[in-house]
Amino acid sequence: MSVQEKLQQLFHPEAVAVIGASATPSKWGFGILHNLIQGQFPGPIYPINLKEKEILGRKAYPSLAETPGPVDLAVIVVPPEKVIPAVLDCGRKGVAAAVIITAGFGEVGAEEMRRQEELSRVIRQTGMVAIGPNCQGVMSAQSRLFAQFLWIFPPAGKISIVSQSGNVGGSLMGRGMAFGIGFSKFVSSGNEAVTKCHELLEYFGEDPETEVVMAYLEGVPEGRAFFRALARVTPRKPVLILKGGVTEAGSRACASHTGILAGEANLFASACRQAGAVLVDTLDDLFYSAVTFASQPLPRTNRVGIVTWGGGWGVLAADACVREGLCLPALPAEVIAELNEFLPSRWSHNNPVDLAAGGGPGVLSRTLELMVKSPAFDGVVQLGIGISSFLRFMTQSSFFFGHADRAKVRETLLSMAAESDKKFSEKVMQLSRETGKPILSASDTASTPSEDNVVMQTFRQEGKIIYPTPFHAARCLGHLARYARFRQKIKREGLSQG
Amino acid sequence: MSVQEKLQQLFHPEAVAVIGASATPSKWGFGILHNLIQGQFPGPIYPINLKEKEILGRKAYPSLAETPGPVDLAVIVVPPEKVIPAVLDCGRKGVAAAVIITAGFGEVGAEEMRRQEELSRVIRQTGMVAIGPNCQGVMSAQSRLFAQFLWIFPPAGKISIVSQSGNVGGSLMGRGMAFGIGFSKFVSSGNEAVTKCHELLEYFGEDPETEVVMAYLEGVPEGRAFFRALARVTPRKPVLILKGGVTEAGSRACASHTGILAGEANLFASACRQAGAVLVDTLDDLFYSAVTFASQPLPRTNRVGIVTWGGGWGVLAADACVREGLCLPALPAEVIAELNEFLPSRWSHNNPVDLAAGGGPGVLSRTLELMVKSPAFDGVVQLGIGISSFLRFMTQSSFFFGHADRAKVRETLLSMAAESDKKFSEKVMQLSRETGKPILSASDTASTPSEDNVVMQTFRQEGKIIYPTPFHAARCLGHLARYARFRQKIKREGLSQG
Repeated sequence: MSVQEKLQQLFHPEAVAVIGASATPSKWGFGILHNLIQGQFPGPIYPINLKEKEILGRKAYPSLAETPGPVDLAVIVVPPEKVIPAVLDCGRKGVAAAVIITAGFGEVGAEEMRRQEELSRVIRQTGMVAIGPNCQGVMSAQSRLFAQFLWIFPPAGKISIVSQSGNVGGSLMGRGMAFGIGFSKFVSSGNEAVTKCHELLEYFGEDPETEVVMAYLEGVPEGRAFFRALARVTPRKPVLILKGGVTEAGSRACASHTGILAGEANLFASACRQAGAVLVDTLDDLFYSAVTFASQPLPRTNRVGIVTWGGGWGVLAADACVREGLCLPALPAEVIAELNEFLPSRWSHNNPVDLAAGGGPGVLSRTLELMVKSPAFDGVVQLGIGISSFLRFMTQSSFFFGHADRAKVRETLLSMAAESDKKFSEKVMQLSRETGKPILSASDTASTPSEDNVVMQTFRQEGKIIYPTPFHAARCLGHLARYARFRQKIKREGLSQG
Repeated sequence: MSVQEKLQQLFHPEAVAVIGASATPSKWGFGILHNLIQGQFPGPIYPINLKEKEILGRKAYPSLAETPGPVDLAVIVVPPEKVIPAVLDCGRKGVAAAVIITAGFGEVGAEEMRRQEELSRVIRQTGMVAIGPNCQGVMSAQSRLFAQFLWIFPPAGKISIVSQSGNVGGSLMGRGMAFGIGFSKFVSSGNEAVTKCHELLEYFGEDPETEVVMAYLEGVPEGRAFFRALARVTPRKPVLILKGGVTEAGSRACASHTGILAGEANLFASACRQAGAVLVDTLDDLFYSAVTFASQPLPRTNRVGIVTWGGGWGVLAADACVREGLCLPALPAEVIAELNEFLPSRWSHNNPVDLAAGGGPGVLSRTLELMVKSPAFDGVVQLGIGISSFLRFMTQSSFFFGHADRAKVRETLLSMAAESDKKFSEKVMQLSRETGKPILSASDTASTPSEDNVVMQTFRQEGKIIYPTPFHAARCLGHLARYARFRQKIKREGLSQG
């Protein structure tokens, strides 16, 4: 079986064993078993524990050998000195993949690095793929596999993550849950003693469940193999990379975190760019751009139109778009003429189209439609969703216009607001589908996750998000446009070679 | 009366008139009157309207002249052609300050710019200060004055805002409300036909209710006066500036927004820096750094310690701190020795101090205390608040360890989590007070505003915030350190001159 076939078993196992499962809630061996069960993994789960007969309602076994059926995936969470014996057990049982949670290897010091090298040698002899050691676990949402210490259960989605930090991965999935964004797979790759990030990247490249790849990397142990894998994946799927350890202090921190050398930051960045990766700067950038790639079409060019309710946000969006290398063409004469027909005269007559708080949601809808459908623009940034906020504000008033039945007025206003919001949000979705152009909407009244937020719910149904500020929207559209240009270049080169 | 004395009346009026008050809920003349009343302004409010006898329960007057008492502040929200007559009425009534909401002046075109110049001339003859035209209103929380169209009523606080955009100001106050952060004053300065941003800046500089000044500026109509005012305020109070119109496209957008020329961005930035302003890049940067300046002491030097639960966040924080010009000294031998006494051996032995998810909240507390009290560090970034998240996660479990009375177990766990969170948060506050050093805490489990978030509530009581990522914390600490250095320089120069 090839590495890629074994990774297929890692992410879609039929049976899982937890070697070092514990009945003590504060232990990692408890958390991992608990989360496998809580995550509703459909196949057999075997806790391996010398003393316990049963943990969390599942029959426990004193050894892997005594489990009644085959095991594809073993999660190893025993003390460091017991890891190699556990791996040998896995070999004898014919396990395809191991996830080694246990820390205390290369990240600690020279002696422990020798222990890690011995571990690698033993794993290679078994022929297994092995994640870790010193990792947080593996998640595969479509298989309902939550073999991880983090108590986070995101819905199934199109984004897969490889992270050399468990807590960075947890941050990303936690945000996803808050915004209703799903993930396909998450691997906390730890010290990468055997299975390396480039092998995971290659797997995600071929995986039909993965459309966008996110990576948090401190270093790549096998640089050439990594950039080769990257260059194979990027023509088909965007790969977003956040690099940790780009400064000397950060790099020192990497050494005691995963024991992986951070390498020279500028060289790494330029090689990534050349291989077509999308480099991001911050956790915000990583999260918002992954959601964007998973939910928006690529723009044909970098020509952008901006539609805004308020002037300041329009100015800031224009600045941010230009800084992202996007182009803001002047409004075509026919668009100006058509807008003049229904906009109050104070509108900006310019790109950004600033409605200056004029007109209702119908007017905004018509304006957006004209901009999105104009051949002058291949993408639109829309600022200040709908106009519901005004109706919502009114519900907080102590007046309700002197009406006797306040509760009813309030209810009517809220339902008007919800209807108007829903209609407008659906229009945004429809326009993007119809034209194949990305429309990125930013709003501070609609960007906070909340169950009664109709706009957010409507966007969420298509995996979309409302950006909290114009900067986030412009940054993400910049990533889309740069990646689109890369794809076009690859295609042209392919054609000219073909 | 000087301009500054009149501004004092603008922010602390005894009686307010709304010229153009309306009974129609969709009109601005309704919103402004409504918000004045809803905001519980304690003095007389006079709606001026030719036809109505009463609006929102307040007696209306056909003209300003017929109001029964003196009026300090008039909010003018009539059509453009009626603004000058309204201003003349204000002059005759002896009004000290006007806020001209009405748009349709310099921001539209050359002809309207002439109308604005005529308006300026008339206002100057009356001797009033006048905000606008083309603005959104004025807020003065300590006076309970919400003379604004925005239905936003933030609690009283230490931060004052001058913004050449109403919607940028609204964004900032809306965020403040979500995080429980108060403001003192907000001025949407619009086209600045008469009263300019530098006069407001000077007022905030002397205002005992203002400790931090935020400015969103597209351009400064009187550059020399602005930088002079800025240089007078910054030695006493931090002034945070977000500049709109730093690109050509953004600058064009400014012209149709406020009609104020954006000017040359690099020149503006370097003059601001020289005058001691804190320049920020984005709305996030502006908001988080204002809250930071309002709630954290200034660090003595730029030497920073990092304490983290998870390795990846520690690496990213180290990178971000270095990029901000902060310095991460090595751990002193005595700190290492003391930490060795109670930390599990896998801790990083390095700055960042990475606990590698080891130990409980007591251990975290002791680690933080050692770092904050060490003379090696003048500020600390702490990542991953408390350990309550684990207890909270458990409450979502379908097991509760087989306990018969699940609801009670859940309640117990939640109250344990809350107690642990509260204790730790109070420790953070106490350590900062005791040592006079800033401690910036980042956590993604604790950064979302929510009523039952004990950590957030405890921080909020001291006007503090939990930063959503290590990047936000590092950026804000960078601003603090740079501003502290500026203040020290000013002080040294003052002493050497004295």
